[in-house]
Amino acid sequence: MTPHEARSRFRAGLKTPTAGWCPGYAQANLLAVPADLAYDMLLFAQRNPKPCPVLDVGDPGATSLPIFAGDLRTDLPGYVVYENGAPVAEVTDVTRFWRDDLVPFLIGCSFTFEDALVREDIPVRHLETGGNVPMYRTSVPCRPAGRLSGPLVVSMRPIPAGRVADAVRVSARYPEVHGAPVHIGDPAGLGIDDLDVPDFGDPVEVRPGEVPVFWACGVTPQAAVMAAGIPFAIGHAPGHMAITDVRDSAYQT
Amino acid sequence: MTPHEARSRFRAGLKTPTAGWCPGYAQANLLAVPADLAYDMLLFAQRNPKPCPVLDVGDPGATSLPIFAGDLRTDLPGYVVYENGAPVAEVTDVTRFWRDDLVPFLIGCSFTFEDALVREDIPVRHLETGGNVPMYRTSVPCRPAGRLSGPLVVSMRPIPAGRVADAVRVSARYPEVHGAPVHIGDPAGLGIDDLDVPDFGDPVEVRPGEVPVFWACGVTPQAAVMAAGIPFAIGHAPGHMAITDVRDSAYQT
Repeated sequence: MTPHEARSRFRAGLKTPTAGWCPGYAQANLLAVPADLAYDMLLFAQRNPKPCPVLDVGDPGATSLPIFAGDLRTDLPGYVVYENGAPVAEVTDVTRFWRDDLVPFLIGCSFTFEDALVREDIPVRHLETGGNVPMYRTSVPCRPAGRLSGPLVVSMRPIPAGRVADAVRVSARYPEVHGAPVHIGDPAGLGIDDLDVPDFGDPVEVRPGEVPVFWACGVTPQAAVMAAGIPFAIGHAPGHMAITDVRDSAYQT
Repeated sequence: MTPHEARSRFRAGLKTPTAGWCPGYAQANLLAVPADLAYDMLLFAQRNPKPCPVLDVGDPGATSLPIFAGDLRTDLPGYVVYENGAPVAEVTDVTRFWRDDLVPFLIGCSFTFEDALVREDIPVRHLETGGNVPMYRTSVPCRPAGRLSGPLVVSMRPIPAGRVADAVRVSARYPEVHGAPVHIGDPAGLGIDDLDVPDFGDPVEVRPGEVPVFWACGVTPQAAVMAAGIPFAIGHAPGHMAITDVRDSAYQT
């Protein structure tokens, strides 16, 4: 399926996590903030490059971008609308919420390198189960920027102990879509009490002989929007990504 | 010599290009712009990552940064002050020009990987001669951002044909300080008519059997300040860099 075809389905109302969709194409996190917050957001990304690798930034009011030929308001399978840091709507179309002063940021997503993991026979549990990847707020603070501050958010994939080094090696080739893991094993070291209760997405089974491997996650700026009580923002629903027109190989070193 | 010692000499008035100074420590380009231009500058950097890899950004009025413990107003060996896009002063101390609303950007510099080239016995001509690296405005436009637009600026090092691939390999390890070359051979392809007449720095001899190799250069945002007629900005004098407290290995992949 091409990105164009996938986006058409989402525009028609299909709501689904996008892991495994359009293999070979990069996926991206969306965060759109009012223009008066755009500098803080760009600086937050510059100061926290692991969770916030910026792939593209639009001019105020832009509804498409060079790397995303669809309509940012309708062509993702799910969105969250925030007011004063609280989610006020989770919808599949944000046209009625969009504003002329919104600056859209597309941020790299680790789904982009999952196809490379699978091609090296490294199992990806949430692809096997068809669920959403589990994501967790951690106790690790991001470096603040202006009005934005909040915790690092991570995604987790259970990897057999003998393949963890391979998962590091493969994902490290994709620094613009979060790259190598930030933490391997020891969930408590990230302040995660219970892997079975993710803050976003669905829990997955960690089987005997597997190690939980944590990658920085592009939901991090949405966690900052919430933690900082930002007046208004629109993000993708976690796991429900923007499927771009860019080949994943474009982000491979 | 430590970065602290080098900065003390510059603060005392020494004016010299910094190539070869403090081997093992990263060097950086400076551009300080008024806060109302900071978003355009940060977006220009995001859109032009090869010439503008941002290492750190200060809050308005900051005179030092986490990666640079010195005083940004005095501890570089040379500065250029711009008004309406024109250089109006080239000085060794910008204290009297500094403003509380200036946002300082430190941008990676290719001097950072020259030590790695030398350690692999790849000759670096301007280090041999003790001059400044030659830099050229090219005919390649940067991607504009807000009020900032202008040409890509490159630095040039003549490399023996048999070592060009090695120079690519070594510099590619340092993506945050410009990384691999943007152009190898064929100066006309960059719109450079005469290698002996650089726009910044000193000409160097290209000997028989050597190929001119071009790296993206952190003078690029200053060229944009000039091309766009920006009201006010302060940059380092080309080749006269900020010597940071960060090991060059910190920017090595």
